[in-house]
Amino acid sequence: MPRFRHYSMLAILTLIVVRDAASQSSPPPLTEQYRAIADRLIDAATGDSAAWHKLARLTDRFGPRLSGSKALEDAIDWILAEMKKEGLENVRGEPVMVPHWVRGDESAELTAPRPQPLPILGLGHSVGTPEGGIEAEVLVVKSFDDLATRGAEARGKIVLFNVPFVAYGATVRYRTEGASAAARAGAVAALVRSVTPHSLSTPHTGRLLYDSAAPRIPAAAVTVEDAMLLARMQERGEKPRLRLRMGARMLPDARSRNVVAEIRGSEHPDEIVVMGGHIDSWDVGQGAMDDGGGCVVAWEALRLMKRLGLRPRRTIRVVMWTNEENGMRGAAAYRDTHRAAVDRHVLAIESDNGVFKPAGFAFTGSDAARARIAEVASLLARIEADSAAPGGGGADIAPLMELGVPGMSPIVDGSRYFWYHHSAADTMDKLDPNDMARVTAALAVMTYIVADMAERLPRAAGR
Amino acid sequence: MPRFRHYSMLAILTLIVVRDAASQSSPPPLTEQYRAIADRLIDAATGDSAAWHKLARLTDRFGPRLSGSKALEDAIDWILAEMKKEGLENVRGEPVMVPHWVRGDESAELTAPRPQPLPILGLGHSVGTPEGGIEAEVLVVKSFDDLATRGAEARGKIVLFNVPFVAYGATVRYRTEGASAAARAGAVAALVRSVTPHSLSTPHTGRLLYDSAAPRIPAAAVTVEDAMLLARMQERGEKPRLRLRMGARMLPDARSRNVVAEIRGSEHPDEIVVMGGHIDSWDVGQGAMDDGGGCVVAWEALRLMKRLGLRPRRTIRVVMWTNEENGMRGAAAYRDTHRAAVDRHVLAIESDNGVFKPAGFAFTGSDAARARIAEVASLLARIEADSAAPGGGGADIAPLMELGVPGMSPIVDGSRYFWYHHSAADTMDKLDPNDMARVTAALAVMTYIVADMAERLPRAAGR
Repeated sequence: MPRFRHYSMLAILTLIVVRDAASQSSPPPLTEQYRAIADRLIDAATGDSAAWHKLARLTDRFGPRLSGSKALEDAIDWILAEMKKEGLENVRGEPVMVPHWVRGDESAELTAPRPQPLPILGLGHSVGTPEGGIEAEVLVVKSFDDLATRGAEARGKIVLFNVPFVAYGATVRYRTEGASAAARAGAVAALVRSVTPHSLSTPHTGRLLYDSAAPRIPAAAVTVEDAMLLARMQERGEKPRLRLRMGARMLPDARSRNVVAEIRGSEHPDEIVVMGGHIDSWDVGQGAMDDGGGCVVAWEALRLMKRLGLRPRRTIRVVMWTNEENGMRGAAAYRDTHRAAVDRHVLAIESDNGVFKPAGFAFTGSDAARARIAEVASLLARIEADSAAPGGGGADIAPLMELGVPGMSPIVDGSRYFWYHHSAADTMDKLDPNDMARVTAALAVMTYIVADMAERLPRAAGR
Repeated sequence: MPRFRHYSMLAILTLIVVRDAASQSSPPPLTEQYRAIADRLIDAATGDSAAWHKLARLTDRFGPRLSGSKALEDAIDWILAEMKKEGLENVRGEPVMVPHWVRGDESAELTAPRPQPLPILGLGHSVGTPEGGIEAEVLVVKSFDDLATRGAEARGKIVLFNVPFVAYGATVRYRTEGASAAARAGAVAALVRSVTPHSLSTPHTGRLLYDSAAPRIPAAAVTVEDAMLLARMQERGEKPRLRLRMGARMLPDARSRNVVAEIRGSEHPDEIVVMGGHIDSWDVGQGAMDDGGGCVVAWEALRLMKRLGLRPRRTIRVVMWTNEENGMRGAAAYRDTHRAAVDRHVLAIESDNGVFKPAGFAFTGSDAARARIAEVASLLARIEADSAAPGGGGADIAPLMELGVPGMSPIVDGSRYFWYHHSAADTMDKLDPNDMARVTAALAVMTYIVADMAERLPRAAGR
């Protein structure tokens, strides 16, 4: 017992010495400085379902928001007006010219061995079929390798890539590159099994990329169910045939805007913490998860600071990028418009993984910066969002990150993301008000503190 | 220790005496008599994926099989031919006249506050709309009580019953009775939220029942997503409007058949164990789960006995009833055709809960009979299907059960049943070959032993 008491005294003395040294060389820990503010932001965000209801007003009223559509521009007008009403600063739409692809009427029908309508979604940027449609035998392949092996059979056929979902990055190649691969083998059209691990007869769209060296053939997604059906028919030697009609076409580029709103910094207004999502969506469902939700949580985080009268030392800027889904023109335009200020971007955050239950943040930047981020995240333990992992980013902030801006994204429960992604099932009912409130709280706390802390978030050496 | 040895000797003597008495008054336990045969049947059923592949051949080739359709009769022709090839006995189609409802073209579109196509499925037996469709404001109600309260608002509107799935029996009332309830309040059409706990923008159909005292108005199911969307719009005072076009109509009754095949009993051929499912389905998806699977597992159970050269003392009869979904005419016809033999029906089994992982059987009959059923079920412990619970039955065997025939149904994992039920998502990929093999094994063991055991399965007193 005397030994224990002795050690204990020593430990306390040591602590005092260490702490004293720390207080001389740097300010008190972020957690001490900001705990009260973090708690106020968390309480405000989680005290009601405002984020969910705002997203419902937006997506119920305007529906899906494909680049070039009136719905997208009407939604942007409404958002800008609401932001102004809320007293946010420097609210503006920054012009961006975007691709304008339209789906038109489309249908597919099995014609042999028996007639059956097949739900499809044409792939974004696909050409249409000739007026009367295309009818041809189907060749089902399992992979690009399988197509290469069976190349001679593809001529004049509709090639279906029946590739099960493994991971998005691996499987989506068939959606993006399948049409041109099939065209090079002489196919007249291409179909892809929808990129999802779970289907209730639900097709999922997304963009294709035509290889300029291959003929442009029409391409659409079929359901997982129908891809498997056609594969079984082929295995039995039943030679399924299909009629495909697609009125898809590309119109001239259209005007759109990146939505911008700020709270200007009190000391370093030219230094910017930017956060947001993309306001465009595919043309089915409501674009609620992908990515109306990502836009609204950032917007709500800023509104809460305004409501609580919080003005950080640096500027916090919300951006809703346009045209993420089929062009990334908004991301490129933001970088170009703000090129001179890129070095004064302290941190860029994108929320585009669905506003599901958050666990923290993923961060790409220097180790020193990640240590600060981890400190801030520890203030989110109350809402179980205190992880700080490596690897954050997003399509719209990638151009900034390439120029050295640290990038970040919320870590969320992604288990159901691809069930809904790019489909008619991306609707409000898939999102939970409590989850959205927590993501809002996490973004508010993270951006406020990074924008307000005495020292700027360190960049990697030389960036 | 001496005391223990003494007791132990006593126990052995007692066992011998009891067992001796038992062997004088009754045959050895069923488990002893039939373990080897049960194991052979289980091995045969679970040794391959024959049931799954047979169902795939059936449902891939003929697709969904609504009463009155060519697909249903073609499927029946194919089944009868296959059964004959397999050497099953007394293979025949017993004539049944069935309702012939056709869906026709149908569509729904939100016209205000913004245009959006809405996936629908007209309800079975609904009338169609006038040629140009119906366009009207939507009144969303939460229940029949809510409709009663808001009755005055329903006149001239399209009434939507936005009732969340609780349990099938409770929720399906809105599908069956909603149209007439809405019509009595002056509505011009009725919509019902699809009866399912899980949706990926998937409408679910099913039969409605018109009240003869109410005007017949068109009725369709919308998706869960769209029902919730319309409810939110109404809550905000946005007065959603909808255009509904349905080409549905009822044609004169059509010829169909109950499919019958047997292995005749060696000693009591007039005593019958009947098992099966219903061969008709709704006109979307493949009718794989509901109820092609139920038909095929019974069929396969019989084929396995034939293949193994097993002929029980009593007759085992497989029946695939027609028109379960929208008329129950097959069930009534079977009862009427076999009225004189109903008392010689020892047991009736229906598999119509999906051929998912089995846990045993539910049984409705005397306690004495259930004790025997439990003995038989214990032989299914190997495949974890050895439960014997009260409460079995099914729509197609209900007319027999009303006349005193003991009824039974496999207990299966029903957790996903209503995800697929009556929708385009009722497809082969939802069923697992191992699960189907186990249900087949369970049916084969149960029916063989009940058909072969020395004493007939006891009925309830006086039945």
